[in-house]
Amino acid sequence: MTEWIQALRDAVGARKVLDSPVDLIAYSFDGTFEQVVPDVAVLPETTEDVSAVVKVASRYGVPVVPRGMASGLAGGSLPARGGIALSLTRMNRILEIDRENMTVAAEAGVVTADLESEVGKVGLFYPPDPSSNKQSTIGGNVACNAGGPRCLKYGVTGDYVMGLTVVLASGEVLRTGGKPIKNVVGYDLTSLFVGSEGTLGIITEALLRLIAKPRFVRTARAEFVSLDDAAHTVNAILTAGIVPATLELMDETAIACIEEAMQLGLPLDVEAMLIIETDGSDEQAVVREIEAAARICRENGARQVNVAQDEEERERLWRARRSVSPSLVRKAPNKLGEDITLPRSAIPEAVRRIKALSARHGLPIVVFGHAGDGNLHPNILFDRRDPAQWEQVEQIVGEIFQVALDLGGTLSGEHGVGTFKLPFMRQALGSTSIDTQRAIKRALDPQNILNPGKVLPEP
Amino acid sequence: MTEWIQALRDAVGARKVLDSPVDLIAYSFDGTFEQVVPDVAVLPETTEDVSAVVKVASRYGVPVVPRGMASGLAGGSLPARGGIALSLTRMNRILEIDRENMTVAAEAGVVTADLESEVGKVGLFYPPDPSSNKQSTIGGNVACNAGGPRCLKYGVTGDYVMGLTVVLASGEVLRTGGKPIKNVVGYDLTSLFVGSEGTLGIITEALLRLIAKPRFVRTARAEFVSLDDAAHTVNAILTAGIVPATLELMDETAIACIEEAMQLGLPLDVEAMLIIETDGSDEQAVVREIEAAARICRENGARQVNVAQDEEERERLWRARRSVSPSLVRKAPNKLGEDITLPRSAIPEAVRRIKALSARHGLPIVVFGHAGDGNLHPNILFDRRDPAQWEQVEQIVGEIFQVALDLGGTLSGEHGVGTFKLPFMRQALGSTSIDTQRAIKRALDPQNILNPGKVLPEP
Repeated sequence: MTEWIQALRDAVGARKVLDSPVDLIAYSFDGTFEQVVPDVAVLPETTEDVSAVVKVASRYGVPVVPRGMASGLAGGSLPARGGIALSLTRMNRILEIDRENMTVAAEAGVVTADLESEVGKVGLFYPPDPSSNKQSTIGGNVACNAGGPRCLKYGVTGDYVMGLTVVLASGEVLRTGGKPIKNVVGYDLTSLFVGSEGTLGIITEALLRLIAKPRFVRTARAEFVSLDDAAHTVNAILTAGIVPATLELMDETAIACIEEAMQLGLPLDVEAMLIIETDGSDEQAVVREIEAAARICRENGARQVNVAQDEEERERLWRARRSVSPSLVRKAPNKLGEDITLPRSAIPEAVRRIKALSARHGLPIVVFGHAGDGNLHPNILFDRRDPAQWEQVEQIVGEIFQVALDLGGTLSGEHGVGTFKLPFMRQALGSTSIDTQRAIKRALDPQNILNPGKVLPEP
Repeated sequence: MTEWIQALRDAVGARKVLDSPVDLIAYSFDGTFEQVVPDVAVLPETTEDVSAVVKVASRYGVPVVPRGMASGLAGGSLPARGGIALSLTRMNRILEIDRENMTVAAEAGVVTADLESEVGKVGLFYPPDPSSNKQSTIGGNVACNAGGPRCLKYGVTGDYVMGLTVVLASGEVLRTGGKPIKNVVGYDLTSLFVGSEGTLGIITEALLRLIAKPRFVRTARAEFVSLDDAAHTVNAILTAGIVPATLELMDETAIACIEEAMQLGLPLDVEAMLIIETDGSDEQAVVREIEAAARICRENGARQVNVAQDEEERERLWRARRSVSPSLVRKAPNKLGEDITLPRSAIPEAVRRIKALSARHGLPIVVFGHAGDGNLHPNILFDRRDPAQWEQVEQIVGEIFQVALDLGGTLSGEHGVGTFKLPFMRQALGSTSIDTQRAIKRALDPQNILNPGKVLPEP
């Protein structure tokens, strides 16, 4: 092992290569319960550094596992087979904000919220807003095709990626895309690397599309005695031609948890609440849109609808949604959040089936998520110290995936596959799809050194 | 040759296999000046038929070249190396309109305008609107990732593809995607097939996302003495947070051609005109948006701005843009329309350089296109019967591509690569990109039977 680590030091300089036990521990975690210690951690500062590292890895056949802030929830950035933990956090420069073409070029290690704030200073807006955006990085967001509440109206991370700089398995540097908005010249390599979780290449820079910052926003919260009514309301709003920026659902278990922890005065006798937000550059239109959405809620059985009249009231309406995660922590020592997506019409049935799972296993499952695009986050509450509960949790996760697949949905809308969802991939996608993807992986990474053991099940 | 044609007849039935010279002529053209006669034309009626055809092709190593209505402008559907012209026009069923999830499933051979009209009957809207939409098919649109004027606000064809049924080179049937809007499970195969021009697989069905039909639309036309002012206006409108459905530019040569042919009373002393259209479900917002756009035009040097007050006036404003192509035909026996895309900020410089090319070669070049997304269609006017002019046209095309590449743009925004743009691919994308794409092509089509000789230059 010494020889290849020495080769890394020679390639990028000793100060960028860490291998003391205490350093390696720092690079052995992500946002899950797992831990895997790498053989070495490397902190590149340029695309050339990354290229040099991958060339060494290729020469010695050593795994390279890229990571940003390691906030991922599927094990994608853990060094499952040892090798090099390649932390891109030092590559955190914003390279260019182009106001005329409304683009930003940034290194992979830029924290998403920092990028949003920097482009905001010149009136531009980067819409993708994963909940982790104060920790997670652009590179990680691109590698997982991260979503967020605003993605209903604005689309996911991949919809904003115009071009990438990628270090291939050979160490060669590939540049995809560019500033032209439309581009049908050759295969869409950009989209292939988006969401590939570091298994096809290492993203070192991204060119991102920006839009004008919406100047006005309005928020409403609607309470539904019936979950079905809430779900139908989501469709009624969208088919009426209203596209809210966000359309979030919380089920009764989520509401109960929040109320218990926060005492916000939430109703405990409703099956669901929706939080709806409209935004845009025309204040009157934004107001009329939220009013139309509120009317549709009432017409579809909402017992009460509150439209915030000022920023303070808006903040109050949001507090419930924002409190979901902290409230869950107070309810049980641990939570495991899943990330299924469904055809929108299947949401009520999915929630019913998940409730049945919860009842059968005797563990609370809280359901909330981005109802507008059918992306639900069922969170299982449990105590990790109890091995029996942990075993049960693992079983419930499988059953939740089965609910999604049975209803025409799939395993992940935002978090990705990592290692956690591998056992379900063949059922989710079918063997033809897996074989096709494996053929692409072999073509681009014949030695299987780029984040091996992730995304695709072995044959 | 007889043996494999007999095998095709055995596989799909003799009536779907045509090989009389007169039939083959019908499948030897596309929207370009080229003609290549296939060895045989096959008219499959199901995905299973396509699979059976590809299995025969694979067994005998015969090229399979899929085509819809063959309106392509880059030679992509011509059987460059003979073999099977696979016409998907009989696969023209709309399979499902799902109002609740706002999706439509259609076979590849459905004509795009027919699909738009069918989903319109239930209040839904399929935005992509290539100019060929009354002839071209969904399969062709997906295979070329077709655009259109409305794509500024609504995105291109690929932005609406949620899933595909694809026959692979082995004859296996792959299904990608599905009704969940968000999906980060495995590599984005859907996007890989979109725009791959039949070289990686044969698209037989598409699942498409729909939106609510915008109920209101407003149109304005602005005249600019200075092309630079028109270009800056485009950016000023977009950075103000207005996203028009369309934002079209016509240069002075286009205006002169239209006026000569149609006598619409267009001004002959301006360098450019913009046509701007706003739409949405809130009439007042749509009106305020068009008025804001008109004001921005005036503030940025427009000499005159007309906002249509009724449908008749709107029709009159559009007549100029719609008349471009017919007017050009009256000006010269032939035209060759190119399809470059640019960073928006480079539009004025690109138009200036193209004008210089026109002057140097003594052939008129008309420039119009989708200014909002930087996609210009320079049309060269000439007489194909004059071999010297044809040679010059080919040279000008190369020079237009060079202008695009020099200004950070690329070769195509809508038409694709086909065979016509092959000679420029390596310069446009670089060898690392071409090699990566070739590796993917080899992985998915090792025998090189799927539309060989297209998209990627040979090594």
